[in-house]
Amino acid sequence: MKNLVGACMFGQSGGPTSVINASAAGVFMQALQEKNITAVYGLAHGIKGLLNEDFYDIGQEDMNELELLKYTPSSALGSVRYKLVDESIDDTDYKRILEVFKKYNVRYFFYNGGNDSMDTCNKISKYLQKVGYDCNIIGVPKTIDNDLYGTDHCPGYGSAAKYVATTLMEINLDAKVYDKPQVCVVEIMGRHAGWLTAASKLADYKGLGPDLIYLPEVPFCIDKFKNDVKRVMDANNGHCIACVSEGVQDKDGKFIVEALSEAKSRDNFGHAQLGGLAIQLSSLINEEFGVKVRGVEFSLLQRCAAHLASKVDVEEAFNAGKKAVEAACAGNTDKMIIFERTNIDGKYGCDYKLMDLELAANTERKVPVEWITEDGTMLSDEFVDYALPLIQGEAKAPLEDGLPRFAKLKKVQAGKAK
Amino acid sequence: MKNLVGACMFGQSGGPTSVINASAAGVFMQALQEKNITAVYGLAHGIKGLLNEDFYDIGQEDMNELELLKYTPSSALGSVRYKLVDESIDDTDYKRILEVFKKYNVRYFFYNGGNDSMDTCNKISKYLQKVGYDCNIIGVPKTIDNDLYGTDHCPGYGSAAKYVATTLMEINLDAKVYDKPQVCVVEIMGRHAGWLTAASKLADYKGLGPDLIYLPEVPFCIDKFKNDVKRVMDANNGHCIACVSEGVQDKDGKFIVEALSEAKSRDNFGHAQLGGLAIQLSSLINEEFGVKVRGVEFSLLQRCAAHLASKVDVEEAFNAGKKAVEAACAGNTDKMIIFERTNIDGKYGCDYKLMDLELAANTERKVPVEWITEDGTMLSDEFVDYALPLIQGEAKAPLEDGLPRFAKLKKVQAGKAK
Repeated sequence: MKNLVGACMFGQSGGPTSVINASAAGVFMQALQEKNITAVYGLAHGIKGLLNEDFYDIGQEDMNELELLKYTPSSALGSVRYKLVDESIDDTDYKRILEVFKKYNVRYFFYNGGNDSMDTCNKISKYLQKVGYDCNIIGVPKTIDNDLYGTDHCPGYGSAAKYVATTLMEINLDAKVYDKPQVCVVEIMGRHAGWLTAASKLADYKGLGPDLIYLPEVPFCIDKFKNDVKRVMDANNGHCIACVSEGVQDKDGKFIVEALSEAKSRDNFGHAQLGGLAIQLSSLINEEFGVKVRGVEFSLLQRCAAHLASKVDVEEAFNAGKKAVEAACAGNTDKMIIFERTNIDGKYGCDYKLMDLELAANTERKVPVEWITEDGTMLSDEFVDYALPLIQGEAKAPLEDGLPRFAKLKKVQAGKAK
Repeated sequence: MKNLVGACMFGQSGGPTSVINASAAGVFMQALQEKNITAVYGLAHGIKGLLNEDFYDIGQEDMNELELLKYTPSSALGSVRYKLVDESIDDTDYKRILEVFKKYNVRYFFYNGGNDSMDTCNKISKYLQKVGYDCNIIGVPKTIDNDLYGTDHCPGYGSAAKYVATTLMEINLDAKVYDKPQVCVVEIMGRHAGWLTAASKLADYKGLGPDLIYLPEVPFCIDKFKNDVKRVMDANNGHCIACVSEGVQDKDGKFIVEALSEAKSRDNFGHAQLGGLAIQLSSLINEEFGVKVRGVEFSLLQRCAAHLASKVDVEEAFNAGKKAVEAACAGNTDKMIIFERTNIDGKYGCDYKLMDLELAANTERKVPVEWITEDGTMLSDEFVDYALPLIQGEAKAPLEDGLPRFAKLKKVQAGKAK
């Protein structure tokens, strides 16, 4: 545990969320107050900005704009998908990072992302320890996928879940408006874990949800899917809404969207641009039962719809950033912030703890199978109890001309890339 | 001008909007107060409910739930797409309508919809006049397409436009987050008129809009589209966001989505299920320039996202319903409610007037070509001046468990279909 004096660097990594900038606000606002932190730098495009000496002097930003970051979706500094190779294979990047850290006397490093980003943090931390360069490194979790190991939930999930549940309620009212049969298939993000697709259960809890929910945690069988849809249609005047995770797989672990695309390509000897999973599954239903179908893909909307952010999520994301700085300044390193759920007199609460980075890197946390009903098409009330506290309240940008007023950073260059 | 005493019927028709139920609330709440109206009936699935004697007694609904209708998207009574054939060809439906009207002493009829629905209103009105049955008939406009003739704008447009503009701002922040080239093509509803796609200009006005906007009002050329995208990419670090109306057509009036699908089918001798316009256009860009692409389709979300409703739109939609009842009770018939824009001391306002139904039926109002820039890829500031007042303010359902509490109607059967 070392109390270091020097600059801090913060970077954003991986896919955007509605609240990744709220964590940035937490890091920046706390770091600017810490007496041991001599400068606060924001990396352009995460680790790439570090390697390229491309970063901004956050001390020159207007405090009102940093406050607005809480309500501004995506990654204000720019994001990156860059995986560090093992130092034992090639240590070029590691040497370069050390060089930049020394040049700007960087003694605090914070990185905001999912599994891969925690792996990056961990590798940098281990290398710096090996070469004897003191730098306190804390990972700040984020992912709409909610699949990070060791934390009750992840910043970003609550807001994405609120988007999914709210939008599903609206789609429910729309898709059942005619008295003719219609099947609507909604595709939701989540390649390996079904947390976000499961959030559609919250709409069902309010009586306006999907009829069927398919997660990657349960093998997906196309024939069973057709039978499930038929059963629901027969019971509901021909209407059915099915939510499907983009990552559903067959019993051999093959992604359904790939299996369907390959089958189509074989049939056609060509390379027709195929729609995604929702389009293809709804098309199968149309071919089989001759009913009107709609394939809806939430696409980017589900991860950047800050106008539907959860207040709980925004506050927790901000605190995750703030606590990371506090922990590092107290001498901690090589850790990730995690959330522990508290329940005092039936009231939800969140405690912020530290976990070894090593544990966070590259492990995935899935939806417990016991929360999925036996036929694999719905979630249990245990999931509702888990997820409902995470989507509470509203926290969004003030309106200007009827539209959100997002943060505008000056981005004053502080690296050599001036 | 006749002051009649009897029941009133109200029906909803065509595609849902965020505020069609706000007009229903306006009709119901005013009709329940009118001394000449002896009963208020809501038709299940519009004209079909009338033909089938399938309707509800609105007098038995809780007033709080009618109030919540203002913030509940889609069509609470159920909608329909049913076009009456000319009475001269087949008068079966007309006779049936007269029979039902007589049976329940219906003397007021209100119908909420777009061009086709106004045509239905007009035909019923003319028939009843011909056979000498007194019934005051007023059409209430609605359409996210904003293409009804004779009115400054249509209820439903403001909220859909607010959704498009807000979401585009969020997509802008998300789609440009990486430092690698990426092209995002967003498909927006509007088969013949580009009003809704044009609303993406409002995001551009706030500095976070698309780079290119294509409306059906201007012939679409695929080669020019590719060149436009390339030019923007070259100027913007490889990033480009293009908004395309689903209804863009080539110079011969052929829908581009159909032309592309046919070309693909010919290539493949088969029937692969193809994506929509956004998927296909983004795929062309990927093939041509080898960059990462995203095709985003707003689909149902743009017309039912009541959580982003415009307060101006909700209030005007409510007033359109209320004014329709007032006008009918004052003895007017065979009219549609229209909006006239007022500007007093630079402040936007809306006057409610009446127009002959005949004028409203089956005519389309398009975006003025002089509001489209010469190269056909952007809107002028005149469009901003037109559209900005329509998206102001928020009006949405109260939250319950962090999710919208929409109206729950009892739907007490009043027709023979008990």
